[in-house]
Amino acid sequence: MTSNRGKLAEFRSALAPLGIEITHSEEECDEIQADSLREVVLSCLDQLKGKGMRDIVIDDSGLFVHALNGFPGVYSSYALRTIGMDGILRLLDGKQDRSAHFECCIGASIGGEEFTVSGRCDGTIALAPSGEEGFGFDPIFVPSGYYRTFAEISITEKNGISHRGRAIQAFAAELRGRIDEAPR
Amino acid sequence: MTSNRGKLAEFRSALAPLGIEITHSEEECDEIQADSLREVVLSCLDQLKGKGMRDIVIDDSGLFVHALNGFPGVYSSYALRTIGMDGILRLLDGKQDRSAHFECCIGASIGGEEFTVSGRCDGTIALAPSGEEGFGFDPIFVPSGYYRTFAEISITEKNGISHRGRAIQAFAAELRGRIDEAPR
Repeated sequence: MTSNRGKLAEFRSALAPLGIEITHSEEECDEIQADSLREVVLSCLDQLKGKGMRDIVIDDSGLFVHALNGFPGVYSSYALRTIGMDGILRLLDGKQDRSAHFECCIGASIGGEEFTVSGRCDGTIALAPSGEEGFGFDPIFVPSGYYRTFAEISITEKNGISHRGRAIQAFAAELRGRIDEAPR
Repeated sequence: MTSNRGKLAEFRSALAPLGIEITHSEEECDEIQADSLREVVLSCLDQLKGKGMRDIVIDDSGLFVHALNGFPGVYSSYALRTIGMDGILRLLDGKQDRSAHFECCIGASIGGEEFTVSGRCDGTIALAPSGEEGFGFDPIFVPSGYYRTFAEISITEKNGISHRGRAIQAFAAELRGRIDEAPR
């Protein structure tokens, strides 16, 4: 799994009850230019399998702003690095529709079987950045039902409602189903 | 060569004097997420060679806005599709530095040898779109030394100064050198 430490801990705590252990790998793949996270994740799985890796779990996330036709989406990390949160706020200046969603796609190749699951968190782009928690675009994203940004709520609270938290839950459920179905 | 018809004509007229004929291919490659056009082009060459193609010429271009840390760069076509020219203008609103450059990278694998050349055109982002010629971000790009945008000058004039025109000239020069050096 190629990711940061916080993500790794989140995956671990969700998968430990299933008796599944997860480790971090430095192995990298080229992320392709595609319009959906799922395409990026599937291409990355292919590349890692091509390098001889087995039993792989990877994930990719993005912020999709509806009034910007889904921008920055799959290219969120590039947009953060270049135009930043300020850029997103400028692009939305004066627009009525500030709705957006975060999406996380997890792809796995386990025991020769490949599958993907997704998690989504709907919300609104704030008028200004606020908060110190989290990372990425968290300070400008207010999840539906909240008055605070992702960067203003605790990591535990965020994991319960976030796109990644939901994707990890879906992933654990999928794995549980596959373990139950497996011949003994 | 995977590209549009206008580009194909431009390549053809530059390479015909060298006795080199160029045809269009529908074969595609996945463009990777990278910070430089050269990385995208090299990855694409690799993929096409992996599909058994020989004697390949490909190109990729982008608009790099300096005050936006090079955004949209390698992701220019995605940015055009989502936030559009209006998005670039919004991001630059109130900024003093409106300098930018277009870059074109051509990569080739010919007779087993692989090389890349680049062409660059410096200029300024206009205050508003103007002109009907060209495509992409042409209506908001004023090349250095001009008062008109790329979309307001003729295609012939544009080819003489554009990033792609310059890359094609560099490509033709490189090929000429390689032909001269080749054993007879």
